[in-house]
Amino acid sequence: MAVYTHLGAEELARLIAEYDVGELVSAKGIAEGVSNSNWLVETTGGRFILTMYERRIDIAQLPFFLGLLDHLAAAGCAVPATIHDRSGEALREVDGKAVALIEFLPGVSPNEPTPAQARAVGAALARVHLAAKDFMPQRENDLAPKDTSRILDKCGMDALRSIDAALPEIAERAHRLVEQWPDDLPHSIIHSDLFPDNVLMLGDEVSGMIDFYFAAHDMMAYDLAVTHAAWCFDKTGELFDAAVGKALVEGYENIRPLEPSEREALPLLAEGACLRFVASRAEDWLDTPADAHVLRKDPMDFVRRWDFYRDQGAAAFA
Amino acid sequence: MAVYTHLGAEELARLIAEYDVGELVSAKGIAEGVSNSNWLVETTGGRFILTMYERRIDIAQLPFFLGLLDHLAAAGCAVPATIHDRSGEALREVDGKAVALIEFLPGVSPNEPTPAQARAVGAALARVHLAAKDFMPQRENDLAPKDTSRILDKCGMDALRSIDAALPEIAERAHRLVEQWPDDLPHSIIHSDLFPDNVLMLGDEVSGMIDFYFAAHDMMAYDLAVTHAAWCFDKTGELFDAAVGKALVEGYENIRPLEPSEREALPLLAEGACLRFVASRAEDWLDTPADAHVLRKDPMDFVRRWDFYRDQGAAAFA
Repeated sequence: MAVYTHLGAEELARLIAEYDVGELVSAKGIAEGVSNSNWLVETTGGRFILTMYERRIDIAQLPFFLGLLDHLAAAGCAVPATIHDRSGEALREVDGKAVALIEFLPGVSPNEPTPAQARAVGAALARVHLAAKDFMPQRENDLAPKDTSRILDKCGMDALRSIDAALPEIAERAHRLVEQWPDDLPHSIIHSDLFPDNVLMLGDEVSGMIDFYFAAHDMMAYDLAVTHAAWCFDKTGELFDAAVGKALVEGYENIRPLEPSEREALPLLAEGACLRFVASRAEDWLDTPADAHVLRKDPMDFVRRWDFYRDQGAAAFA
Repeated sequence: MAVYTHLGAEELARLIAEYDVGELVSAKGIAEGVSNSNWLVETTGGRFILTMYERRIDIAQLPFFLGLLDHLAAAGCAVPATIHDRSGEALREVDGKAVALIEFLPGVSPNEPTPAQARAVGAALARVHLAAKDFMPQRENDLAPKDTSRILDKCGMDALRSIDAALPEIAERAHRLVEQWPDDLPHSIIHSDLFPDNVLMLGDEVSGMIDFYFAAHDMMAYDLAVTHAAWCFDKTGELFDAAVGKALVEGYENIRPLEPSEREALPLLAEGACLRFVASRAEDWLDTPADAHVLRKDPMDFVRRWDFYRDQGAAAFA
């Protein structure tokens, strides 16, 4: 959560002039995104989010992410379209960094989601899956269990133990999960990271889904499982909200009914979702000095969820 | 530049409901303010800045600052008015912290001010001085040379030398300035910190002056000198822009002509302005670990300005 780059008013005005959106009226650096700088920009023509890509994101993949937004927005999904500049480009360069101007969408991210909100999110996710099927560019998911299990291994058992004594055993559990992982369930482009932070809502309506920078070709039911793990627990993963979970899946199935094989796989797919966040959080934890004034997210929050899915099996989705 | 507190959407919606401003539509934490958290909030009734006071600011003084905004806005100055809640209060409490809802003003802060912009800022500052004269509450300036000289002394000569070998001599120079400091020039409430960051402009028009949290009863010509030091140099204080300086003073005098004693005192007052920023930056520098990922502002940027005013004297304002 930061703005990593200072963009002066004059520089911003020059950049905005490259788009057909009127003149700059206001610009505020906003505290969103961990790998981008973002500004909420107002012009005489409307409001926009200006994103500058700082790190972590492979610039070569940006056309995939931005093209996907345009494809989904054109299909009526609640995602922001990109604004193309006067020469038709969605990406420009400022100070050697890639920038994109993106539609501003209203809404706030729920902190304590209700079943009605989860139902709407399930439906919105299903609409993305259906609309993305005819998006031609492809991107492989590089955070599937085989990848995230390797991330845990790379951390090293001693380092994992320094975070929590239980983590080395979790790395072992990850190996078994990789062997059981299915690959034959229906695919589309999936969001892969649809936490409440990445959903804007007006009351019980989804007004926007954002941050598609993990989107990739993968199993749709896996995306539903990621969203389940992200929406149905308190932060620490200790409390499961069955009503929110049930509404999420129902909302999804109202738009795209799951095949029996998908439904059966959900608990295992949810374990894979937990592995992913255990691994990325463990890696970040070890990369972040304890005194760095940055909030380190505890990987154990997702070990608890993983335990829940493993213990409950199909009951977690009943 | 940060948002220090997480405010959930539900908590924000409950807070906004205490004001007669419609329903919450959007809220973005913005990267402004060093001692506050700020959100750009949109409701069905308009746009606002929600400020949560985190530290540095003495809560007991907030009614002074907020009352001043209302007084100046009512007098037609380009400052944001505060929004009062349904019971008429400008201040509320959330999680034990004071919050205020403030009018949103358009505009962007110039990074490379032009003479036309400086002229408009000079005029806007003079209007504040005139309008503030009948604001009854008083607040003493606790960053006058006697105070800021003491801050330098408290840093200690060894610590000052660790920043720059020239700083201990500057602390001596500060003592001499305190002895020469006038007190008999015309007073009003002054802004005291009108850097370009704290001015919003639409082209050459001032659309807003913000961040009045250093406002205090003091000499008006001192405020003009602070603004001169803040607007007429490049960041490092090496390059002086005479055209910007001339336009600033002219713009001020178009609204409020300086008395001869004020004009004569300007170079000395500008030295006092430089002392203030040398002292606060030195103090922050020593408080901030070198590896804290926070930009430390170099106190020497204002030693260079100080040298300029001392060497040039009246010529700096010719």
